[in-house]
Amino acid sequence: MKAKNIIFLFAGCLFSQVCLAQTELKSDLKAFRPAESNQPGKLFPQVNDEGKVRVSLYAPQAAKVQLDLGGKKYEMTKNEEGLWTGESAPQDEGFHYYQLNVDGASIPDPNSRYFYGAGRLGSGIEVPAYDEAFYALQKVPHGMVSENIYYSNLTQTWRRCFIYTPASYYENKNSRFPVLYLQHGSFEDETGWVNQGKANLILDNLIAQNKAKPMIIVTDNGYALKPEATEAPEKGQGISIFEDVLIKEVIPMIDKRFRTLADREHKAIAGLSMGANQTMRIVMKNPDKFAYYGGFSGTSNYPNTDVIDPDVFMEGKFKSGTELNKKLKLLWLGLGTKEPAPFPKSVGAFRAMLDKQGVRYTYYESPKTAHEWLTWRRSLQNFAPLLFR
Amino acid sequence: MKAKNIIFLFAGCLFSQVCLAQTELKSDLKAFRPAESNQPGKLFPQVNDEGKVRVSLYAPQAAKVQLDLGGKKYEMTKNEEGLWTGESAPQDEGFHYYQLNVDGASIPDPNSRYFYGAGRLGSGIEVPAYDEAFYALQKVPHGMVSENIYYSNLTQTWRRCFIYTPASYYENKNSRFPVLYLQHGSFEDETGWVNQGKANLILDNLIAQNKAKPMIIVTDNGYALKPEATEAPEKGQGISIFEDVLIKEVIPMIDKRFRTLADREHKAIAGLSMGANQTMRIVMKNPDKFAYYGGFSGTSNYPNTDVIDPDVFMEGKFKSGTELNKKLKLLWLGLGTKEPAPFPKSVGAFRAMLDKQGVRYTYYESPKTAHEWLTWRRSLQNFAPLLFR
Repeated sequence: MKAKNIIFLFAGCLFSQVCLAQTELKSDLKAFRPAESNQPGKLFPQVNDEGKVRVSLYAPQAAKVQLDLGGKKYEMTKNEEGLWTGESAPQDEGFHYYQLNVDGASIPDPNSRYFYGAGRLGSGIEVPAYDEAFYALQKVPHGMVSENIYYSNLTQTWRRCFIYTPASYYENKNSRFPVLYLQHGSFEDETGWVNQGKANLILDNLIAQNKAKPMIIVTDNGYALKPEATEAPEKGQGISIFEDVLIKEVIPMIDKRFRTLADREHKAIAGLSMGANQTMRIVMKNPDKFAYYGGFSGTSNYPNTDVIDPDVFMEGKFKSGTELNKKLKLLWLGLGTKEPAPFPKSVGAFRAMLDKQGVRYTYYESPKTAHEWLTWRRSLQNFAPLLFR
Repeated sequence: MKAKNIIFLFAGCLFSQVCLAQTELKSDLKAFRPAESNQPGKLFPQVNDEGKVRVSLYAPQAAKVQLDLGGKKYEMTKNEEGLWTGESAPQDEGFHYYQLNVDGASIPDPNSRYFYGAGRLGSGIEVPAYDEAFYALQKVPHGMVSENIYYSNLTQTWRRCFIYTPASYYENKNSRFPVLYLQHGSFEDETGWVNQGKANLILDNLIAQNKAKPMIIVTDNGYALKPEATEAPEKGQGISIFEDVLIKEVIPMIDKRFRTLADREHKAIAGLSMGANQTMRIVMKNPDKFAYYGGFSGTSNYPNTDVIDPDVFMEGKFKSGTELNKKLKLLWLGLGTKEPAPFPKSVGAFRAMLDKQGVRYTYYESPKTAHEWLTWRRSLQNFAPLLFR
């Protein structure tokens, strides 16, 4: 046997019937292209220029198959080979969760990658956006994303955070970096900001263009519950101690493991939706720890839309605009123009309070996006360049 | 509004019908327990002490639902609420890929986590093993696993590797570490050794017990193809250049980004199945680069089971046992006792050749496991302690 290059079978189509059927549909690829969110080598799901999503599933004995996307169920149709295909109405640009329904079973699409949202790992579809270059994988220096498992003494559970380190972290092995703590929304987890949010690629691109300072980003899990006390099991259940976990456990761990700049001038905190609410409370209660705040699609008066009384709201933390302006170097808010109730009015009420109190802040609106990941990718894109200046 | 701890809705059961039905089955939890490989909070799939796997799927209109596991399809049955449940025969200890079939559709189980194998992201089930402590998440110092994206000029594609760094990498920020390059098998990818193999936890545990030296582990993607030449598109297709990518691109990148000990005495290479075959070729062709080799369930004569002629095999690289024994500090082979053909005979023929040539090697057999991840976890557990001594 001669030592030579070997032709290895390449991972791909294992189930030949499906492959044959998919090949027949290839002719349509001009209009519909495989989504960026697909598993390697998968031709479906596809997206066209209008943002319509087309899915396929081989299910020869099924009576009814549907595409469940954006709150609507689209009927799919079967060909002679048993391959079902279906198409959605045009979708907003950006990332959306979806699932398939097969004879009443809600299932992940076998062809998509899976993302943690809506409280489970499920399918996602990437609809190309006009400005997608800012979160695309570009030929620029890339940082790394590290998974860090830790035991929390406060929650008495194993927890996990992810740490983005920029490319320059590995260039000069003595340099130190500022840190942005960045939180996900409800029913999502610590994987969201990288998997759906593409925070690493957004920063790689911003840093390569000299638009943002090289920084570390930490994404932790916003669900951190007080352990059930043995004497009174009902007491602990459901009480969030995320703030304590972040301040007392995560930040010291990050400052120990990474070459950080650990003072408040080099520490920022931001979050989306539930994470915006959580991190606003954290920054207001810990002004010695953070100098920068970002709230993406959420404020701490959520879900309230009433006029805010600054004497009462958050124990009067917003009473003195002058004092707040001195302390916080950045108070940044973002929202999508298509967000549903109560977000526009709730964030609106918060902004009205800031205006009345003379609190300096930056407000950004993401065009034509709802309470979804493209709003938050764009928020990060606009927020990160203002940090650590 | 008073600033106080807020009770957040916790991610979990979103689809109430399924949850109700799952609760009814809770009474059986004594015998069947939720698998370690489940998504957070999911009660199914379950495993019992015999290694039987029980799955459930809510599919009220389906006519036929099956559990497809270990090459067999098990019929599932439906209750009045439309919840299907089914049970497998006892399975071998360790990790197995599986899927569900709903009216002819092969789908991932919505309750399991997903693992890249068989050329796609699919469901996996963890059947507890008598020795599972060695790969369990224990209260010991934990290293990190970092995702590294890079552009390969050789393949002209984006590629990815993962890097495990031990806990002590972050203790002394000037210390340098030896590196093990560790490869997956066919139809798997660079995520396999962490997600299915639990290589990070195995090393965390070994290092904490002082059984293995702290080391860096790098897992790359074994599929690296020559780009199709524009003059002759058919020429490049399917020709593996993984060896070149590893030697010329990955190793220099790792030595640049991480604090490695870059000489051959501190570099090991190992792989499983296809990866064993690939890495054996790499170590034999690059004796200046590696001093340690591990082949888990595979040798470079695969799939051949004939007597090996050392004058011809791999260009005579095994002709002189004396020379090889001087060069290689470790030649390590592992195999499961239940591996199917051609592995036992193929590895057997290779060992017979080594014996005949007087090549020193270590041989390990994993009890009662086939060509599966528990064989490879145990191989790593037994191989890693012998490295860098």
